[in-house]
Amino acid sequence: MTRRGLLIILSSPSGAGKSTLAGRLRAWDETLQFSVSATTRAPREGEVDGKDYYFVSVSAFQDQVANAGMLEHARVFGNYYGSPKAPVQTAIESGRDVLFDIDWQGAQQISNSALQEHVLSIFILPPSIAELHRRLVSRGQDAADVIEGRMQKSWDEISHWDGYDYVLVNDDLDNTEAQLKTIISAERLRRSQQPQLVDHVRSLQSQFGERT
Amino acid sequence: MTRRGLLIILSSPSGAGKSTLAGRLRAWDETLQFSVSATTRAPREGEVDGKDYYFVSVSAFQDQVANAGMLEHARVFGNYYGSPKAPVQTAIESGRDVLFDIDWQGAQQISNSALQEHVLSIFILPPSIAELHRRLVSRGQDAADVIEGRMQKSWDEISHWDGYDYVLVNDDLDNTEAQLKTIISAERLRRSQQPQLVDHVRSLQSQFGERT
Repeated sequence: MTRRGLLIILSSPSGAGKSTLAGRLRAWDETLQFSVSATTRAPREGEVDGKDYYFVSVSAFQDQVANAGMLEHARVFGNYYGSPKAPVQTAIESGRDVLFDIDWQGAQQISNSALQEHVLSIFILPPSIAELHRRLVSRGQDAADVIEGRMQKSWDEISHWDGYDYVLVNDDLDNTEAQLKTIISAERLRRSQQPQLVDHVRSLQSQFGERT
Repeated sequence: MTRRGLLIILSSPSGAGKSTLAGRLRAWDETLQFSVSATTRAPREGEVDGKDYYFVSVSAFQDQVANAGMLEHARVFGNYYGSPKAPVQTAIESGRDVLFDIDWQGAQQISNSALQEHVLSIFILPPSIAELHRRLVSRGQDAADVIEGRMQKSWDEISHWDGYDYVLVNDDLDNTEAQLKTIISAERLRRSQQPQLVDHVRSLQSQFGERT
């Protein structure tokens, strides 16, 4: 029996370290497939279509939602975001785990979908709000009003921390990275994630039979 | 809010390495409390009362069962075995995890008790039946007929592998030890195991309040 891959969801407010941590996980395990979100917002400088996001039109996005082609989708700051279903289905059916960098709305939708028994959801909390603000400012990507918008959205995101399987406080990136690896490694050892064990137990049973 | 300890159950057929692994886990984490079983069987050479087992009379055992003083109990090879409840309650209420080296009957009873949401159950499979037999013989503790009795009980134990949260094939002790540590470390990061996070999130909420 083939193992079905896990849907590993990482959520956090902007600035809590989620994208850095997602990058480290992908470097750690190259079999981990990253779910590239689709969005109707314009690309920022340096963003690559198909790598950072799939940049699509509003009508193309809405068509995909209408055709049940999105695992989850939401509207944030006036733009649509969603996780295309097809690449995720292909990956998990071939036993590959898929990593999602999505917000609480997407996490809720996937955690309550037909795939829920394969979902592993992790929320990353900042050590403090001052630190969250400091990290947003130090990225140097955004204007002051954009940063303030992100800060205001932060509490909305944090307030959903209690819908996740695991919760980590990221006060040290290396430590949080190690904790994420521990969680993913452990989840892969769950009985439900190791259907090949059925064959092993069947083999043990035959070996008992041959002794008598 | 204080964390409640986990009830960590290790089960396997005799010879799969469970007791060795339990010993290594206790050396790894001294806060881990071992649940010493009570039994009505006679002590073997070298066994210490209160350390290996509590050696008790049949009537004392039955009294403790009648007074709901056992978390689980069963009769195996004509002797009673059980896990006294009081030390486990004390440990988990003070936030200490408790390790159980018990068979499938005990695991089932604890996994279906009022404490079930704090149970973490792990089954250890042998790589092969020949290897299981080899390990039982190489311990040099038991006569051939005792070993044969254990071998016959092995399939009964293995056949219950599918009632456990995690299942490991112990073909390398060091590797299995590392997997056990990974599982226990990850389970401690579950949201449900970190009630102190409620205080952290409350603090973040206050910090947001102070910004406006």
